[in-house]
Amino acid sequence: MMGDTLREILGLALPIIQAPMAGVQDSELAIAVCNAGALGSLPAAMLDPDTLASELDTIGQATQGPYNVNFFCHQPPQYNAERDADWQRDLAPFYRQWNIAEGGDAATSGRAPFSEASLEVLEIYTPPVVSFHFGLPAEALLLRVKAWGAKVICSATTVAEAQWLERRGVDVIIAQGLEAGGHRGLFLTSKLSQQLGTFALLPQICAAVSVPVVAAGGIASAQGVSAAMALGAAGVQVGTTYLLCPEANTSPLHRAALRSERAQHTAVSNRFTGRPARAIVNRMMQDLGPVGNSMPDFPLAAHRLAPLRAAAEAQGKDDFTSLWCGQNASGCAEIPAAELTRRLAAGL
Amino acid sequence: MMGDTLREILGLALPIIQAPMAGVQDSELAIAVCNAGALGSLPAAMLDPDTLASELDTIGQATQGPYNVNFFCHQPPQYNAERDADWQRDLAPFYRQWNIAEGGDAATSGRAPFSEASLEVLEIYTPPVVSFHFGLPAEALLLRVKAWGAKVICSATTVAEAQWLERRGVDVIIAQGLEAGGHRGLFLTSKLSQQLGTFALLPQICAAVSVPVVAAGGIASAQGVSAAMALGAAGVQVGTTYLLCPEANTSPLHRAALRSERAQHTAVSNRFTGRPARAIVNRMMQDLGPVGNSMPDFPLAAHRLAPLRAAAEAQGKDDFTSLWCGQNASGCAEIPAAELTRRLAAGL
Repeated sequence: MMGDTLREILGLALPIIQAPMAGVQDSELAIAVCNAGALGSLPAAMLDPDTLASELDTIGQATQGPYNVNFFCHQPPQYNAERDADWQRDLAPFYRQWNIAEGGDAATSGRAPFSEASLEVLEIYTPPVVSFHFGLPAEALLLRVKAWGAKVICSATTVAEAQWLERRGVDVIIAQGLEAGGHRGLFLTSKLSQQLGTFALLPQICAAVSVPVVAAGGIASAQGVSAAMALGAAGVQVGTTYLLCPEANTSPLHRAALRSERAQHTAVSNRFTGRPARAIVNRMMQDLGPVGNSMPDFPLAAHRLAPLRAAAEAQGKDDFTSLWCGQNASGCAEIPAAELTRRLAAGL
Repeated sequence: MMGDTLREILGLALPIIQAPMAGVQDSELAIAVCNAGALGSLPAAMLDPDTLASELDTIGQATQGPYNVNFFCHQPPQYNAERDADWQRDLAPFYRQWNIAEGGDAATSGRAPFSEASLEVLEIYTPPVVSFHFGLPAEALLLRVKAWGAKVICSATTVAEAQWLERRGVDVIIAQGLEAGGHRGLFLTSKLSQQLGTFALLPQICAAVSVPVVAAGGIASAQGVSAAMALGAAGVQVGTTYLLCPEANTSPLHRAALRSERAQHTAVSNRFTGRPARAIVNRMMQDLGPVGNSMPDFPLAAHRLAPLRAAAEAQGKDDFTSLWCGQNASGCAEIPAAELTRRLAAGL
């Protein structure tokens, strides 16, 4: 696949996608990237319908180019009292240490899957590109997304997932290598050993499907972009590298960690939400180990952490904060997203 | 770093290194690769001094070009009765199932570190390149290797390891990405979460050291070679891709696994030897989990498996066999190693 294919399909000047990063960015970063000729993304997983509408309105007014709206497609979680109790037991020493009595509000999960409600908003704004993580929505919903001509993108973390997505008519597949920051998009497997590094995953997915494949995971420079294209990618998706841009909402604690040596040590952890996601190793990940065997279903793990996170952050500590980050933070720079996009585009 | 640098330093026509693979190849594969203009490697970790001498003699007669001899540099293991008992307890159900009474011979570890004895053989044959895994030998031994003009190569799995190697005067550093098959070369850390995918590790090591860096892990095609060079590599090291060549000693069981769908699922496991190494998932890895927390020190874990492995292999089963393999077996082909080398070289 050549880069031109992706440019044609998505109507882009540059085959570069800014990775949607729920919790650390909103329309401002997406707009800056769109106006630089690449594909800016709005992460919608943590937005209620009104906020989603308002953000789409903002993007529509600020850019003429295509843009992407991203949703999670997890199954709504089943509350499991036993797992919740296990998780509370694991966290109990921290609650005692921080002198917190309450255990968080189980009703607030914070991350909702793509739904009828999301779709009703999208049908008003008809975004040109819609991307999904953790698989696809039900076929009826997916057909309605395609009905206004939206191009559909979804992440694959294995060859089998890529083939599954191609059979369901996805227009572009993201090959999400193990280096990538944030949530792993895995949906046909739960085995972390089946997650491949970008160097292994990308060419094997390119060989297995005929739709354009976008490389994600570890790409942080023009050289990284060139390498991905050499391996058969039609374009790249870059996340971590944008985290220090002024247009991102990355918190001061998160920014400080990204700028430090600590960013060299990340791990895939299911402690923050119940699903595996790569973050800079912090106190909780060290003390409990990054992976638990009986975490509450995604995203129910998050609410038990919320009071701890708030208490620690109030004292300037990131002990319970999800410091999302890929394995290559070397491209992070405190420069406008448009300039960063141009740096990356030099590798095309 | 440009490929020319590596060619000049090592005197190669092609900046491609055939990864040394103890147990699955000998001088025959090394010679075939050398005669194709790349750097063939003889894995010496499992050779006694007489066999090493004989192999070096064979290589010297069969090729004019440079060649590489590879050694492990682990600390000689301390026998720990408690860990050994734990390991025997874990394996007890398999021993019962296979009706085996004996528990292996603890005296035979099978893998010896680089030593005075190795050096005495090398000083006769003065190989042009010597490479090390698991760090470097003691300085006095290393100086003697350098004394006959040998170039020294060593694997790094983290940026810190690469910087450590550069300070000790290594001529070339292998950036061993997490995709690579066989033993992880880690030596300053034991944390698997600090092991990076090639896309993240390679450019960060290239930026941190000034000696040439060779990319390893997931490279299986000309495109993979091009991508590694785009990321700043001075050359590539390729292992798994050579495993089906007729010049390799890969066993029929191992070859069958490599040709099958099973090769798509590998994991890093310390069950085979006590150190983490990537292999195709087999029965033992599935039943016990790939990683144990209290395995005997490398390489003492191996001997308890030997009777099980022999019994299973006699029935055509690889339940206890170390099916070394990286995350990208897609380049494996039953073609002469010289032809495979030319395929890879097309990406230079």
